[in-house]
Amino acid sequence: MAMKLYFAPGACSFVPHSLLETAGADYEPVMVKLHKGEQNEPAFRAVNPRGQVPVLVDGDQTITQIVAIVTYLDAKFPEQQYLPKDPLARAKVLETLAWMNNTVHPTFTHVFMPFKFAGTPEAQEELKSFNAKVYAGLLGEIEAMAKKAADAGKPWLGGDKLGPLDVYSLTLLRWGGFAKIDPASFPALWAHVQKVAQQPGVAKAVERERLQLNLFKA
Amino acid sequence: MAMKLYFAPGACSFVPHSLLETAGADYEPVMVKLHKGEQNEPAFRAVNPRGQVPVLVDGDQTITQIVAIVTYLDAKFPEQQYLPKDPLARAKVLETLAWMNNTVHPTFTHVFMPFKFAGTPEAQEELKSFNAKVYAGLLGEIEAMAKKAADAGKPWLGGDKLGPLDVYSLTLLRWGGFAKIDPASFPALWAHVQKVAQQPGVAKAVERERLQLNLFKA
Repeated sequence: MAMKLYFAPGACSFVPHSLLETAGADYEPVMVKLHKGEQNEPAFRAVNPRGQVPVLVDGDQTITQIVAIVTYLDAKFPEQQYLPKDPLARAKVLETLAWMNNTVHPTFTHVFMPFKFAGTPEAQEELKSFNAKVYAGLLGEIEAMAKKAADAGKPWLGGDKLGPLDVYSLTLLRWGGFAKIDPASFPALWAHVQKVAQQPGVAKAVERERLQLNLFKA
Repeated sequence: MAMKLYFAPGACSFVPHSLLETAGADYEPVMVKLHKGEQNEPAFRAVNPRGQVPVLVDGDQTITQIVAIVTYLDAKFPEQQYLPKDPLARAKVLETLAWMNNTVHPTFTHVFMPFKFAGTPEAQEELKSFNAKVYAGLLGEIEAMAKKAADAGKPWLGGDKLGPLDVYSLTLLRWGGFAKIDPASFPALWAHVQKVAQQPGVAKAVERERLQLNLFKA
Protein backbone atom coordinates (compact mmCIF):
# COMPACT_ATOMS: atom_id res chain seq x y z
CA MET A 1 0.00 0.00 0.00
CA ALA A 2 1.38 3.38 -0.97
CA MET A 3 1.91 6.10 1.61
CA LYS A 4 -0.40 9.08 1.93
CA LEU A 5 0.50 12.61 2.88
CA TYR A 6 -2.22 14.92 4.16
CA PHE A 7 -1.14 18.47 3.38
CA ALA A 8 -2.58 21.96 3.17
CA PRO A 9 -1.38 24.45 0.57
CA GLY A 10 1.17 26.82 2.07
CA ALA A 11 1.23 25.12 5.48
CA CYS A 12 4.32 23.54 7.03
CA SER A 13 3.26 20.25 5.42
CA PHE A 14 5.22 21.70 2.50
CA VAL A 15 8.32 20.28 4.24
CA PRO A 16 7.44 16.55 3.91
CA HIS A 17 5.59 17.27 0.64
CA SER A 18 8.82 18.57 -0.91
CA LEU A 19 10.93 15.78 0.56
CA LEU A 20 8.59 13.06 -0.75
CA GLU A 21 8.64 14.62 -4.23
CA THR A 22 12.42 14.95 -4.08
CA ALA A 23 12.70 11.22 -3.33
CA GLY A 24 10.29 10.38 -6.16
CA ALA A 25 8.29 8.47 -3.54
CA ASP A 26 5.24 6.39 -4.37
CA TYR A 27 2.62 8.19 -2.30
CA GLU A 28 -0.78 9.80 -2.55
CA PRO A 29 -0.97 13.52 -1.73
CA VAL A 30 -4.28 14.33 -0.01
CA MET A 31 -5.21 18.00 0.16
CA VAL A 32 -6.88 19.36 3.32
CA LYS A 33 -8.57 22.70 2.69
CA LEU A 34 -7.99 24.68 5.86
CA HIS A 35 -10.00 27.70 4.61
CA LYS A 36 -13.03 25.39 4.32
CA GLY A 37 -12.40 23.98 7.82
CA GLU A 38 -11.77 20.45 6.54
CA GLN A 39 -9.25 19.94 9.35
CA ASN A 40 -12.16 20.00 11.80
CA GLU A 41 -14.38 17.56 9.95
CA PRO A 42 -14.85 14.07 11.40
CA ALA A 43 -13.16 12.43 8.38
CA PHE A 44 -9.89 14.26 9.05
CA ARG A 45 -10.15 14.16 12.86
CA ALA A 46 -10.28 10.37 12.49
CA VAL A 47 -6.85 10.59 10.85
CA ASN A 48 -5.41 13.18 13.26
CA PRO A 49 -7.47 14.00 16.36
CA ARG A 50 -5.47 17.23 16.75
CA GLY A 51 -6.73 18.43 13.37
CA GLN A 52 -3.30 19.40 12.06
CA VAL A 53 -1.30 18.77 8.92
CA PRO A 54 1.06 17.21 7.99
CA VAL A 55 0.04 13.61 8.54
CA LEU A 56 2.00 10.81 6.92
CA VAL A 57 0.18 7.48 6.63
CA ASP A 58 2.24 4.39 5.95
CA GLY A 59 0.24 1.16 5.96
CA ASP A 60 -1.97 1.26 9.04
CA GLN A 61 0.26 3.72 10.87
CA THR A 62 0.04 7.50 11.03
CA ILE A 63 2.83 9.89 11.93
CA THR A 64 2.33 13.56 12.72
CA GLN A 65 4.82 16.33 13.57
CA ILE A 66 7.44 17.59 11.10
CA VAL A 67 10.41 16.41 13.16
CA ALA A 68 9.03 12.88 13.45
CA ILE A 69 8.02 12.65 9.80
CA VAL A 70 11.42 13.92 8.65
CA THR A 71 13.31 11.33 10.70
CA TYR A 72 10.97 8.63 9.37
CA LEU A 73 11.47 9.70 5.75
CA ASP A 74 15.22 9.86 6.38
CA ALA A 75 15.15 6.19 7.44
CA LYS A 76 12.87 5.26 4.53
CA PHE A 77 14.91 7.03 1.82
CA PRO A 78 18.50 6.83 3.10
CA GLU A 79 19.92 7.67 -0.34
CA GLN A 80 18.37 11.14 -0.07
CA GLN A 81 20.49 12.00 2.98
CA TYR A 82 17.84 14.32 4.38
CA LEU A 83 19.75 14.22 7.67
CA PRO A 84 23.48 13.64 8.18
CA LYS A 85 24.47 10.18 9.40
CA ASP A 86 27.13 11.36 11.86
CA PRO A 87 25.45 11.76 15.28
CA LEU A 88 26.87 15.20 15.98
CA ALA A 89 26.14 16.62 12.52
CA ARG A 90 22.69 15.05 12.73
CA ALA A 91 22.06 16.64 16.13
CA LYS A 92 23.08 20.06 14.79
CA VAL A 93 20.56 19.81 11.93
CA LEU A 94 17.85 18.57 14.31
CA GLU A 95 18.71 21.48 16.62
CA THR A 96 17.87 23.99 13.89
CA LEU A 97 14.87 21.98 12.69
CA ALA A 98 13.46 21.83 16.25
CA TRP A 99 14.06 25.57 16.68
CA MET A 100 12.28 26.38 13.41
CA ASN A 101 9.44 24.15 14.57
CA ASN A 102 9.08 25.25 18.22
CA THR A 103 10.11 28.91 17.97
CA VAL A 104 9.98 30.43 14.48
CA HIS A 105 6.86 28.59 13.32
CA PRO A 106 4.74 29.28 16.46
CA THR A 107 5.83 32.93 16.48
CA PHE A 108 4.18 33.24 13.07
CA THR A 109 1.10 31.43 14.38
CA HIS A 110 0.66 34.32 16.83
CA VAL A 111 0.49 36.71 13.86
CA PHE A 112 -1.69 34.52 11.64
CA MET A 113 -3.98 32.85 14.18
CA PRO A 114 -3.80 34.93 17.38
CA PHE A 115 -7.15 33.47 18.50
CA LYS A 116 -5.27 30.29 19.38
CA PHE A 117 -3.54 32.13 22.23
CA ALA A 118 -5.94 34.82 23.45
CA GLY A 119 -9.67 35.44 23.55
CA THR A 120 -10.03 39.23 23.53
CA PRO A 121 -9.71 41.32 20.34
CA GLU A 122 -7.32 43.72 22.09
CA ALA A 123 -4.96 40.93 23.17
CA GLN A 124 -5.13 39.39 19.70
CA GLU A 125 -4.12 42.71 18.09
CA GLU A 126 -1.22 43.02 20.52
CA LEU A 127 -0.10 39.45 19.72
CA LYS A 128 -0.12 40.23 16.00
CA SER A 129 1.97 43.38 16.18
CA PHE A 130 4.35 42.17 18.92
CA ASN A 131 5.10 38.86 17.24
CA ALA A 132 5.44 40.28 13.72
CA LYS A 133 8.50 42.11 15.09
CA VAL A 134 9.80 39.00 16.85
CA TYR A 135 9.28 37.04 13.64
CA ALA A 136 11.39 39.47 11.62
CA GLY A 137 14.19 38.99 14.15
CA LEU A 138 13.97 35.21 13.85
CA LEU A 139 14.06 35.39 10.04
CA GLY A 140 17.19 37.45 10.58
CA GLU A 141 18.74 34.45 12.32
CA ILE A 142 17.92 32.25 9.32
CA GLU A 143 19.34 34.95 7.03
CA ALA A 144 22.60 34.65 8.98
CA MET A 145 22.58 30.87 8.46
CA ALA A 146 21.96 31.28 4.72
CA LYS A 147 24.74 33.88 4.45
CA LYS A 148 27.16 31.68 6.37
CA ALA A 149 26.41 28.73 4.07
CA ALA A 150 26.75 30.88 0.94
CA ASP A 151 30.02 32.41 2.16
CA ALA A 152 31.36 28.91 2.82
CA GLY A 153 30.30 27.76 -0.65
CA LYS A 154 27.80 25.29 0.82
CA PRO A 155 24.72 24.89 -1.37
CA TRP A 156 22.39 23.68 1.42
CA LEU A 157 21.68 24.71 5.02
CA GLY A 158 21.92 21.32 6.69
CA GLY A 159 24.18 18.93 4.84
CA ASP A 160 25.44 17.84 1.45
CA LYS A 161 21.99 17.58 -0.10
CA LEU A 162 18.71 19.47 -0.05
CA GLY A 163 17.03 18.79 3.28
CA PRO A 164 14.35 19.84 5.74
CA LEU A 165 16.06 23.11 6.74
CA ASP A 166 16.06 24.31 3.13
CA VAL A 167 12.38 23.67 2.51
CA TYR A 168 11.25 24.82 5.97
CA SER A 169 13.14 28.09 5.44
CA LEU A 170 11.20 28.58 2.19
CA THR A 171 7.91 28.18 4.07
CA LEU A 172 8.98 30.47 6.91
CA LEU A 173 10.24 33.27 4.65
CA ARG A 174 7.12 33.00 2.49
CA TRP A 175 4.91 33.38 5.58
CA GLY A 176 6.79 36.57 6.34
CA GLY A 177 4.78 38.22 3.55
CA PHE A 178 1.64 37.86 5.69
CA ALA A 179 3.49 39.74 8.43
CA LYS A 180 4.39 42.55 5.97
CA ILE A 181 8.00 41.44 5.82
CA ASP A 182 9.70 41.94 2.44
CA PRO A 183 11.71 38.80 1.60
CA ALA A 184 14.23 40.99 -0.23
CA SER A 185 15.21 42.44 3.15
CA PHE A 186 16.88 39.06 3.80
CA PRO A 187 18.98 38.83 0.62
CA ALA A 188 20.94 35.63 1.32
CA LEU A 189 17.83 33.79 2.52
CA TRP A 190 15.70 35.09 -0.34
CA ALA A 191 18.31 33.95 -2.89
CA HIS A 192 18.50 30.57 -1.16
CA VAL A 193 14.72 30.14 -1.07
CA GLN A 194 14.41 30.96 -4.78
CA LYS A 195 17.08 28.37 -5.57
CA VAL A 196 15.35 25.79 -3.36
CA ALA A 197 12.03 26.42 -5.13
CA GLN A 198 13.65 25.54 -8.46
CA GLN A 199 14.81 22.08 -7.42
CA PRO A 200 12.69 19.52 -9.31
CA GLY A 201 11.02 17.86 -6.30
CA VAL A 202 10.38 21.15 -4.54
CA ALA A 203 9.05 22.67 -7.76
CA LYS A 204 6.47 19.87 -7.99
CA ALA A 205 5.26 20.60 -4.45
CA VAL A 206 5.17 24.34 -5.22
CA GLU A 207 3.09 23.63 -8.31
CA ARG A 208 0.64 21.27 -6.59
CA GLU A 209 0.15 23.76 -3.74
CA ARG A 210 0.01 26.65 -6.27
CA LEU A 211 2.36 28.68 -4.09
CA GLN A 212 3.41 32.20 -4.87
CA LEU A 213 6.81 32.62 -3.21
CA ASN A 214 6.64 36.36 -2.58
CA LEU A 215 3.48 37.39 -0.74
CA PHE A 216 4.80 40.77 0.35
CA LYS A 217 2.83 43.85 -0.69
CA ALA A 218 4.45 47.23 -0.05
CA MET B 1 37.18 15.73 27.87
CA ALA B 2 33.99 15.08 29.80
CA MET B 3 30.69 16.48 28.58
CA LYS B 4 29.01 19.45 30.23
CA LEU B 5 25.30 20.04 30.67
CA TYR B 6 24.10 23.57 31.34
CA PHE B 7 20.81 23.28 33.22
CA ALA B 8 18.47 25.40 35.30
CA PRO B 9 16.56 23.94 38.26
CA GLY B 10 13.02 23.06 37.26
CA ALA B 11 13.47 23.97 33.59
CA CYS B 12 13.10 21.55 30.70
CA SER B 13 16.83 20.87 30.96
CA PHE B 14 15.60 18.34 33.52
CA VAL B 15 15.04 16.00 30.54
CA PRO B 16 18.70 15.59 29.48
CA HIS B 17 19.80 15.98 33.12
CA SER B 18 17.78 12.91 34.07
CA LEU B 19 18.89 10.94 31.02
CA LEU B 20 22.58 11.65 31.65
CA GLU B 21 22.22 10.57 35.28
CA THR B 22 20.30 7.46 34.20
CA ALA B 23 23.17 6.51 31.89
CA GLY B 24 25.72 7.13 34.64
CA ALA B 25 27.44 9.46 32.18
CA ASP B 26 30.75 11.14 32.87
CA TYR B 27 29.71 14.79 32.62
CA GLU B 28 29.83 18.05 34.51
CA PRO B 29 26.47 19.60 35.43
CA VAL B 30 26.66 23.40 35.26
CA MET B 31 23.85 25.30 36.95
CA VAL B 32 22.47 28.45 35.30
CA LYS B 33 20.47 30.57 37.76
CA LEU B 34 17.61 31.97 35.71
CA HIS B 35 16.22 33.99 38.63
CA LYS B 36 19.56 35.83 38.77
CA GLY B 37 19.50 36.39 35.00
CA GLU B 38 22.65 34.34 34.41
CA GLN B 39 21.22 33.23 31.05
CA ASN B 40 21.66 36.79 29.82
CA GLU B 41 25.24 37.25 31.01
CA PRO B 42 28.02 37.31 28.41
CA ALA B 43 29.58 34.11 29.80
CA PHE B 44 26.45 32.08 29.07
CA ARG B 45 25.55 33.90 25.85
CA ALA B 46 28.97 32.82 24.57
CA VAL B 47 27.82 29.22 25.11
CA ASN B 48 24.30 29.72 23.73
CA PRO B 49 23.56 33.05 22.01
CA ARG B 50 19.83 32.39 22.48
CA GLY B 51 20.29 32.34 26.26
CA GLN B 52 18.39 29.11 26.80
CA VAL B 53 19.03 25.89 28.66
CA PRO B 54 19.65 23.02 28.11
CA VAL B 55 23.01 23.14 26.38
CA LEU B 56 25.07 19.99 26.01
CA VAL B 57 28.76 20.51 25.36
CA ASP B 58 30.78 17.59 24.02
CA GLY B 59 34.37 18.42 23.22
CA ASP B 60 34.34 21.65 21.25
CA GLN B 61 30.76 21.20 20.09
CA THR B 62 27.56 22.50 21.64
CA ILE B 63 24.07 21.14 21.10
CA THR B 64 20.88 22.93 22.13
CA GLN B 65 17.22 21.92 21.85
CA ILE B 66 15.75 18.96 23.76
CA VAL B 67 14.93 16.94 20.63
CA ALA B 68 18.46 17.29 19.26
CA ILE B 69 20.13 16.55 22.60
CA VAL B 70 17.94 13.48 23.15
CA THR B 71 18.80 11.99 19.74
CA TYR B 72 22.48 12.70 20.39
CA LEU B 73 22.40 11.02 23.82
CA ASP B 74 20.51 8.10 22.27
CA ALA B 75 23.37 7.60 19.81
CA LYS B 76 25.98 8.07 22.56
CA PHE B 77 24.39 5.65 25.03
CA PRO B 78 22.67 3.03 22.83
CA GLU B 79 22.35 0.58 25.73
CA GLN B 80 19.94 2.99 27.44
CA GLN B 81 17.43 2.68 24.58
CA TYR B 82 16.14 6.22 25.12
CA LEU B 83 14.49 5.96 21.72
CA PRO B 84 13.26 2.81 19.97
CA LYS B 85 15.48 1.51 17.14
CA ASP B 86 12.63 0.59 14.77
CA PRO B 87 12.02 3.62 12.50
CA LEU B 88 8.25 3.63 12.96
CA ALA B 89 8.34 3.19 16.75
CA ARG B 90 11.08 5.81 16.89
CA ALA B 91 9.00 8.26 14.83
CA LYS B 92 6.01 7.74 17.14
CA VAL B 93 8.11 8.62 20.22
CA LEU B 94 9.62 11.63 18.43
CA GLU B 95 6.08 12.68 17.44
CA THR B 96 5.06 12.93 21.09
CA LEU B 97 8.39 14.45 22.13
CA ALA B 98 8.09 17.13 19.42
CA TRP B 99 4.48 17.84 20.48
CA MET B 100 5.49 18.20 24.13
CA ASN B 101 8.25 20.53 23.01
CA ASN B 102 6.42 22.70 20.45
CA THR B 103 2.90 22.72 21.93
CA VAL B 104 2.65 21.75 25.61
CA HIS B 105 5.86 23.45 26.73
CA PRO B 106 5.27 26.81 24.94
CA THR B 107 1.66 26.87 26.16
CA PHE B 108 3.07 26.93 29.68
CA THR B 109 5.54 29.64 28.68
CA HIS B 110 2.52 31.87 27.94
CA VAL B 111 1.39 31.41 31.55
CA PHE B 112 4.84 31.73 33.14
CA MET B 113 6.52 34.32 30.90
CA PRO B 114 3.72 36.12 29.01
CA PHE B 115 6.06 39.07 28.39
CA LYS B 116 7.75 36.93 25.73
CA PHE B 117 4.62 37.18 23.57
CA ALA B 118 2.95 40.51 24.38
CA GLY B 119 3.96 43.94 25.63
CA THR B 120 0.85 45.30 27.36
CA PRO B 121 -0.15 44.25 30.91
CA GLU B 122 -3.74 43.58 29.74
CA ALA B 123 -2.64 41.24 26.94
CA GLN B 124 -0.23 39.48 29.31
CA GLU B 125 -3.05 38.85 31.82
CA GLU B 126 -5.23 37.47 29.03
CA LEU B 127 -2.40 35.18 27.87
CA LYS B 128 -2.00 33.83 31.39
CA SER B 129 -5.63 32.96 31.99
CA PHE B 130 -6.38 31.76 28.44
CA ASN B 131 -3.37 29.48 28.26
CA ALA B 132 -3.72 28.07 31.78
CA LYS B 133 -6.96 26.52 30.51
CA VAL B 134 -5.35 25.30 27.30
CA TYR B 135 -2.52 23.84 29.37
CA ALA B 136 -4.91 21.83 31.52
CA GLY B 137 -6.40 20.36 28.34
CA LEU B 138 -2.96 19.37 27.05
CA LEU B 139 -2.06 17.72 30.36
CA GLY B 140 -5.32 15.82 29.88
CA GLU B 141 -3.87 14.40 26.66
CA ILE B 142 -0.76 13.23 28.52
CA GLU B 143 -3.01 11.77 31.23
CA ALA B 144 -4.70 9.70 28.49
CA MET B 145 -1.28 8.46 27.34
CA ALA B 146 -0.31 7.51 30.89
CA LYS B 147 -3.62 5.72 31.43
CA LYS B 148 -3.30 3.85 28.14
CA ALA B 149 0.22 2.70 29.07
CA ALA B 150 -0.88 1.67 32.58
CA ASP B 151 -3.91 -0.22 31.23
CA ALA B 152 -1.65 -2.07 28.79
CA GLY B 153 0.78 -2.95 31.58
CA LYS B 154 3.53 -0.86 30.00
CA PRO B 155 5.81 0.78 32.58
CA TRP B 156 7.02 3.64 30.35
CA LEU B 157 5.40 6.06 27.92
CA GLY B 158 7.72 5.63 24.96
CA GLY B 159 9.39 2.24 24.89
CA ASP B 160 10.76 -0.60 26.96
CA LYS B 161 12.88 1.63 29.17
CA LEU B 162 12.60 5.00 30.87
CA GLY B 163 12.94 7.68 28.21
CA PRO B 164 12.45 11.34 27.33
CA LEU B 165 8.64 11.19 27.37
CA ASP B 166 8.65 9.99 30.98
CA VAL B 167 10.92 12.71 32.30
CA TYR B 168 9.39 15.48 30.16
CA SER B 169 5.94 14.53 31.45
CA LEU B 170 7.26 14.96 35.01
CA THR B 171 8.45 18.48 34.17
CA LEU B 172 5.20 19.41 32.41
CA LEU B 173 2.93 18.13 35.18
CA ARG B 174 5.09 19.82 37.80
CA TRP B 175 4.80 23.15 35.96
CA GLY B 176 1.03 22.73 36.14
CA GLY B 177 1.27 23.72 39.82
CA PHE B 178 2.28 27.24 38.73
CA ALA B 179 -0.92 27.35 36.65
CA LYS B 180 -2.99 26.30 39.70
CA ILE B 181 -3.51 22.81 38.32
CA ASP B 182 -3.69 20.04 40.92
CA PRO B 183 -1.58 17.08 39.72
CA ALA B 184 -3.99 14.73 41.51
CA SER B 185 -6.63 15.74 38.94
CA PHE B 186 -4.60 13.64 36.47
CA PRO B 187 -4.37 10.41 38.50
CA ALA B 188 -2.64 8.14 35.96
CA LEU B 189 -0.10 10.81 35.04
CA TRP B 190 0.51 11.78 38.67
CA ALA B 191 1.13 8.13 39.61
CA HIS B 192 3.47 7.78 36.64
CA VAL B 193 5.38 10.95 37.48
CA GLN B 194 5.89 9.86 41.08
CA LYS B 195 7.23 6.52 39.87
CA VAL B 196 9.53 8.24 37.39
CA ALA B 197 10.89 10.51 40.14
CA GLN B 198 11.93 7.44 42.13
CA GLN B 199 14.13 5.94 39.43
CA PRO B 200 17.76 6.24 40.56
CA GLY B 201 19.04 8.52 37.76
CA VAL B 202 15.96 10.74 37.83
CA ALA B 203 16.13 10.91 41.63
CA LYS B 204 19.69 12.26 41.37
CA ALA B 205 18.56 15.02 39.01
CA VAL B 206 15.58 15.80 41.28
CA GLU B 207 17.96 16.08 44.23
CA ARG B 208 20.53 18.27 42.44
CA GLU B 209 17.76 20.60 41.21
CA ARG B 210 16.05 20.43 44.65
CA LEU B 211 12.70 19.90 42.98
CA GLN B 212 9.46 19.63 44.83
CA LEU B 213 7.18 17.54 42.62
CA ASN B 214 3.87 18.99 43.74
CA LEU B 215 3.77 22.79 43.50
CA PHE B 216 -0.01 23.06 43.65
CA LYS B 217 -1.53 25.16 46.39
CA ALA B 218 -5.30 24.98 46.82
